[in-house]
Amino acid sequence: MEKVVLAYSGGLDTSYCAVYLSKIKKLEVHAVLVDLGGFSPTELQAIENRALELGVASFTVLNVQEQYYDECLKYLVFGNVLKNNTYPLSVSSERVFQARALALYAQKIGARSIAHGSTGAGNDQVRFDSIFQVLLPGVEILTPIRDQKLSRDEEIEFLRSHGVELDFQKAQYSVNKGLWGTSIGGKETLGSLGALPEEAYPTPATKKQPEFLALYFEKGELKKINGSEFQCPIEAIRTIARIAQPFGIGRDIHVGDTIIGIKGRVAFEAAAPLIIIKAHHLLEKHTLTKAQMLLKDQVTLTYANLIHDGQVLDPVVKDIEALLVSSQEKVTGEVTLELHPFHFNLLGVASKNDLMNKKYASYGEENPLWNAQDMKGFIKINSNALSIYHKVHENGN
Amino acid sequence: MEKVVLAYSGGLDTSYCAVYLSKIKKLEVHAVLVDLGGFSPTELQAIENRALELGVASFTVLNVQEQYYDECLKYLVFGNVLKNNTYPLSVSSERVFQARALALYAQKIGARSIAHGSTGAGNDQVRFDSIFQVLLPGVEILTPIRDQKLSRDEEIEFLRSHGVELDFQKAQYSVNKGLWGTSIGGKETLGSLGALPEEAYPTPATKKQPEFLALYFEKGELKKINGSEFQCPIEAIRTIARIAQPFGIGRDIHVGDTIIGIKGRVAFEAAAPLIIIKAHHLLEKHTLTKAQMLLKDQVTLTYANLIHDGQVLDPVVKDIEALLVSSQEKVTGEVTLELHPFHFNLLGVASKNDLMNKKYASYGEENPLWNAQDMKGFIKINSNALSIYHKVHENGN
Amino acid sequence: MEKVVLAYSGGLDTSYCAVYLSKIKKLEVHAVLVDLGGFSPTELQAIENRALELGVASFTVLNVQEQYYDECLKYLVFGNVLKNNTYPLSVSSERVFQARALALYAQKIGARSIAHGSTGAGNDQVRFDSIFQVLLPGVEILTPIRDQKLSRDEEIEFLRSHGVELDFQKAQYSVNKGLWGTSIGGKETLGSLGALPEEAYPTPATKKQPEFLALYFEKGELKKINGSEFQCPIEAIRTIARIAQPFGIGRDIHVGDTIIGIKGRVAFEAAAPLIIIKAHHLLEKHTLTKAQMLLKDQVTLTYANLIHDGQVLDPVVKDIEALLVSSQEKVTGEVTLELHPFHFNLLGVASKNDLMNKKYASYGEENPLWNAQDMKGFIKINSNALSIYHKVHENGN
Amino acid sequence: MEKVVLAYSGGLDTSYCAVYLSKIKKLEVHAVLVDLGGFSPTELQAIENRALELGVASFTVLNVQEQYYDECLKYLVFGNVLKNNTYPLSVSSERVFQARALALYAQKIGARSIAHGSTGAGNDQVRFDSIFQVLLPGVEILTPIRDQKLSRDEEIEFLRSHGVELDFQKAQYSVNKGLWGTSIGGKETLGSLGALPEEAYPTPATKKQPEFLALYFEKGELKKINGSEFQCPIEAIRTIARIAQPFGIGRDIHVGDTIIGIKGRVAFEAAAPLIIIKAHHLLEKHTLTKAQMLLKDQVTLTYANLIHDGQVLDPVVKDIEALLVSSQEKVTGEVTLELHPFHFNLLGVASKNDLMNKKYASYGEENPLWNAQDMKGFIKINSNALSIYHKVHENGN
Repeated sequence: MEKVVLAYSGGLDTSYCAVYLSKIKKLEVHAVLVDLGGFSPTELQAIENRALELGVASFTVLNVQEQYYDECLKYLVFGNVLKNNTYPLSVSSERVFQARALALYAQKIGARSIAHGSTGAGNDQVRFDSIFQVLLPGVEILTPIRDQKLSRDEEIEFLRSHGVELDFQKAQYSVNKGLWGTSIGGKETLGSLGALPEEAYPTPATKKQPEFLALYFEKGELKKINGSEFQCPIEAIRTIARIAQPFGIGRDIHVGDTIIGIKGRVAFEAAAPLIIIKAHHLLEKHTLTKAQMLLKDQVTLTYANLIHDGQVLDPVVKDIEALLVSSQEKVTGEVTLELHPFHFNLLGVASKNDLMNKKYASYGEENPLWNAQDMKGFIKINSNALSIYHKVHENGN
Repeated sequence: MEKVVLAYSGGLDTSYCAVYLSKIKKLEVHAVLVDLGGFSPTELQAIENRALELGVASFTVLNVQEQYYDECLKYLVFGNVLKNNTYPLSVSSERVFQARALALYAQKIGARSIAHGSTGAGNDQVRFDSIFQVLLPGVEILTPIRDQKLSRDEEIEFLRSHGVELDFQKAQYSVNKGLWGTSIGGKETLGSLGALPEEAYPTPATKKQPEFLALYFEKGELKKINGSEFQCPIEAIRTIARIAQPFGIGRDIHVGDTIIGIKGRVAFEAAAPLIIIKAHHLLEKHTLTKAQMLLKDQVTLTYANLIHDGQVLDPVVKDIEALLVSSQEKVTGEVTLELHPFHFNLLGVASKNDLMNKKYASYGEENPLWNAQDMKGFIKINSNALSIYHKVHENGN
Repeated sequence: MEKVVLAYSGGLDTSYCAVYLSKIKKLEVHAVLVDLGGFSPTELQAIENRALELGVASFTVLNVQEQYYDECLKYLVFGNVLKNNTYPLSVSSERVFQARALALYAQKIGARSIAHGSTGAGNDQVRFDSIFQVLLPGVEILTPIRDQKLSRDEEIEFLRSHGVELDFQKAQYSVNKGLWGTSIGGKETLGSLGALPEEAYPTPATKKQPEFLALYFEKGELKKINGSEFQCPIEAIRTIARIAQPFGIGRDIHVGDTIIGIKGRVAFEAAAPLIIIKAHHLLEKHTLTKAQMLLKDQVTLTYANLIHDGQVLDPVVKDIEALLVSSQEKVTGEVTLELHPFHFNLLGVASKNDLMNKKYASYGEENPLWNAQDMKGFIKINSNALSIYHKVHENGN
Repeated sequence: MEKVVLAYSGGLDTSYCAVYLSKIKKLEVHAVLVDLGGFSPTELQAIENRALELGVASFTVLNVQEQYYDECLKYLVFGNVLKNNTYPLSVSSERVFQARALALYAQKIGARSIAHGSTGAGNDQVRFDSIFQVLLPGVEILTPIRDQKLSRDEEIEFLRSHGVELDFQKAQYSVNKGLWGTSIGGKETLGSLGALPEEAYPTPATKKQPEFLALYFEKGELKKINGSEFQCPIEAIRTIARIAQPFGIGRDIHVGDTIIGIKGRVAFEAAAPLIIIKAHHLLEKHTLTKAQMLLKDQVTLTYANLIHDGQVLDPVVKDIEALLVSSQEKVTGEVTLELHPFHFNLLGVASKNDLMNKKYASYGEENPLWNAQDMKGFIKINSNALSIYHKVHENGN
């Protein structure tokens, strides 16, 4: 039997795929779940059990959270990436990374095809297909859900007819949990107006009392929380989420252009990315030059689009990452924040690399570095070009 | 006697300038206050009284708020301009505009010199001098404060010696009130760490109960608040500030590169700009194309720097404004928000120009416009370039 | 019978389409040729005769050269658009413009379908289809050549079997003649190495003696050649081509990314665009500010891609054009050139708007506007940021 | 006696400085010439002799050509840097590099001051001063020529009065010879119109017969000329200049914005940079992706300005260079050119990394990778956004 790798999540769609691919297409189904931090051990066990009940040839969890951090999240922080100034690319970055892990796995086991459960209406199909096509030339991509356009009831009926009697409850909200944020879609996000009700958010906003948080970055990477080093970056992100998400921080709605040309709207909760990125950005304001800030802002507009649109295999992504790494050389220091219900304040930074250094100059205060004469010279020469421009054109020329 | 126009604010520094210029320099001092919305009628009267006590030849209030909106604030909204993603350029845009108004006035009355009270340590001196130099070639710029570097006590002593016994209280915080936000400097902002205490903010955060707000934009310009048209944009901005500032919304700290090369840090409260810009931006996400969003983001990085740095007389500013006006053609619709203490939520938009239109397509839902086959073709061709790239390089080439 | 509009050129492919659509698909074929300056009256007559022989219901020439200039070429000059620094978008801009004219015509006559003869291997199919899809929703797009993949012999055989005995000579080089340049493909351009032989270029390089040329621009638009005004911009472009193309000027090879993800290579001769753009660019160097030059360079990178990729209906194109128009306000003056075999020199400009004006300053000469003291102040303040940066980091920090 | 390092070139101005600093200012003058390839051994010997005659304490030639290539020219090639699309930054890059070498030398010998002979009217003073200020805090910068504004005759008289009777001929053209090109200023370049006469160019255009040239690049760096490896990049640049400059190739006039706000115009001959950059750029068109090309074009606009304006110590320069290095990973292959009098043709490339690879796809030919159906799907989805846009707005909305 030919091997197929199936991107498996345990939901109705991928369960349908598992049975369809093995029973109807007669393929040896290797179900793979790429774990980027969205599942508890209990959940993973339940998913495995279900997969085996469905009769897959194997079930594998690929825990690539550390690579996900090293090859992806790290750069999203370096670039302060918030798509359209709002969305930390929670799901986008995850999908793209899952696709790469799946492709590598398919290569390893010599699969002749690879399958996913995406529909024909979203971004994920593009991210999966694109990456599979590039990394797995000659391997067929199977997408039963997209091709067959079945209703939930038809899928359940098909499973039942193949002896699978599972309880697939239709959730009121479609929730996508991941290390870098959780997206939530529902009837409110299908239209352009209306926020989600409190109960739609997976993490209830229960905290009321302000808390302080101190984040220490080294060359742009988070290294300590409240003075304590941590084992691995993944754990740090989880810790911040645990502290901050119960404040309801990082809830928002993303509206943007999908890869397929239509507008999409989705809610999310992403306390950790928002806090880390805003703290990191503040540290940059103190440690980078004006030219570095501007260049980073320009370049990361492109970077965010590349990640969102699943174009991570374009070598330009590595080029931008090289620039980002270089830019972080001096981004070291501690940022202090105060967390409140639904918002947080940045209280400031302490950094040996702080360019706002009283030893050399103070804004608005008398300064030892220059005098009024210098300043007049500066302004005069600095105005030369426009002075000449206006002289040339002064007679209504 | 030769005429000098003095940018007069009623504070100690410009009072010193008034006396110094008339008594010592023997000039005919025409004190001018450019009113951009930062003063109540009572405050203006007090400032006028003081000016006359100081013995100026004339005192004039230039009320150019409408021009300030038409020629400046409008574009800051079109461009969603928040410097370093934070600061609405409250003071920057004001200074630049005041300088232009002062230069025009000096031209009108035939002044041979023009004076301002800026020190040699900030951005304002550059903005004033640059604009005066360009618009008033041949007119001398006088800056007694910058040149003489006197202490407060020396200034007060000088005034007293000329018969002026005014009460200049040293405020704990230096507050700069304007239509587009109020900046606040104090001991906390001189260092890199530490937020202002509640009492430092001019508007106490007293509101606790959420309120809704509906902003209707037409071609990018705010036209109605909660369904009601208003007389003039200035009034609208004031109304939003009156509603929202008591929530403590729009308080933040700006850290950035000054024009003179040092880093500066300043707190501000700017509820109206933040609310208007974020609402406007959301409306754009629904009504602009992806390419428009990207281009605007790129171009306004430059625009914000030009305004901040006082380079408004560069013709490139008009070029960018032409682009911005064109981009607003379809930015029409209503945005609904919910105000809370210290933060606000954008609830969504209602717009006839909304490109997220269920009639044509719905993200994540089945769509009449295309089928799975189309999608596969799209993804295949869309992946051509990277497929070829990876084929060419597949053997570790 | 249902009406179809056929983009007709008189070549084998569109002749096949004409017969196929009428005889096999039983459609009323309205052959349309959009004339953008690539045809002589004799050629147009020959094409019309052929069309009628093929039995089309009507043959129409849409002469939209003036609109082509007004809505397209003008902006390519304003933007100094040379794709990849080489190619004036000769064919790209033409196709896009033809597609719009065809769509309008189809709308006017109420056609239910629209057909073109492009294959499935190039950019033109994307440009045609995209624009038809957007402007003609509901109108079917017919592409017999792309769908049927016939060989030349099969097409000729089909025509013969329907009584058409025309002489379709296979040219050694595929030549695409237009107002804004002529592209030439051949066996040399199929590979990455090798130039075309002299005889492949439609205009023989016969001129040997240098000639002068003076181009006068007004607000960025060419208005006079050698001191003489001309009737219309189209005629001016033709005049320059007539003067300069016999020098072999403007011959080059364009290598670039096609819309379909593969690299393409094509030779071209385009003396007029090259000369006009380089002269215009020089005039801009003298009349625009540094910030205008930089912004234009940044923005036109995007503009060139949009035009090339057939995305002209994106409203962002109008936004950029608004910026370009604004930027041309002062681009007025005369540029003098010297033409030589295969190259030309720009001798300089004469313009009342020239910012290089000895009255105010001369580079490298003593200047009345400033003194050494001013310059030292300028440099000191201008170096503040980096001085502080290096002080902060001086101990290998 | 206190040590001063003097940037010495052997001309009248720096000779004046040498005597002035030692005789009048009583400093121990250490004359330093930073050799970047502009001098023959004979010339160097003559300069040394003159320096010693003037009575300097020491004369040192710093040959930093290899570092100049490694730390500067390499990146100018990677970035295809031609300022305003014309000028290879010949003098700009040189000055900046000389300043760094001089600063290091001053540090090494513990000089308390550093001197150069620039006037107050050009870019060089800014480049020198800026870099000295940043790298040598506390070291005084001495600029007698800028400060004293002497005429030639006054300088000669001063020298004579101190016993120096040298023959300083006033050249008709001011020529600045360097490895990366020679700039030439003269009466023609002081105005906006007029080219230099043939005799003003240091290298007569004597070659008439076409020659071929094959340049082999490895990761963006030139490695072989006509199949032969060379000792060092410096030698390669010289070889190309020797071959190509006698054709008159690379002669042009640069018009641009100086750092001090005025426009400047200067002629140059720079055959080697032009040929290397154009060849390198062509190789990139074949080996980089579309996104890489666009990003590089955007980023190098900034890079060119930073180098030109002497801002090389801004860490953003290193950030961009990191991006550039990454982008060159696959830029390997041979480019063939044909040299002619005053111009050259690029004949094409041969590269294993060529993305224009017939094995996978051929532009305009039938392709195995996709069919008409795929293409229609691509175009449909690719047009979704604009189709929806135009539907939403179709009724003149």
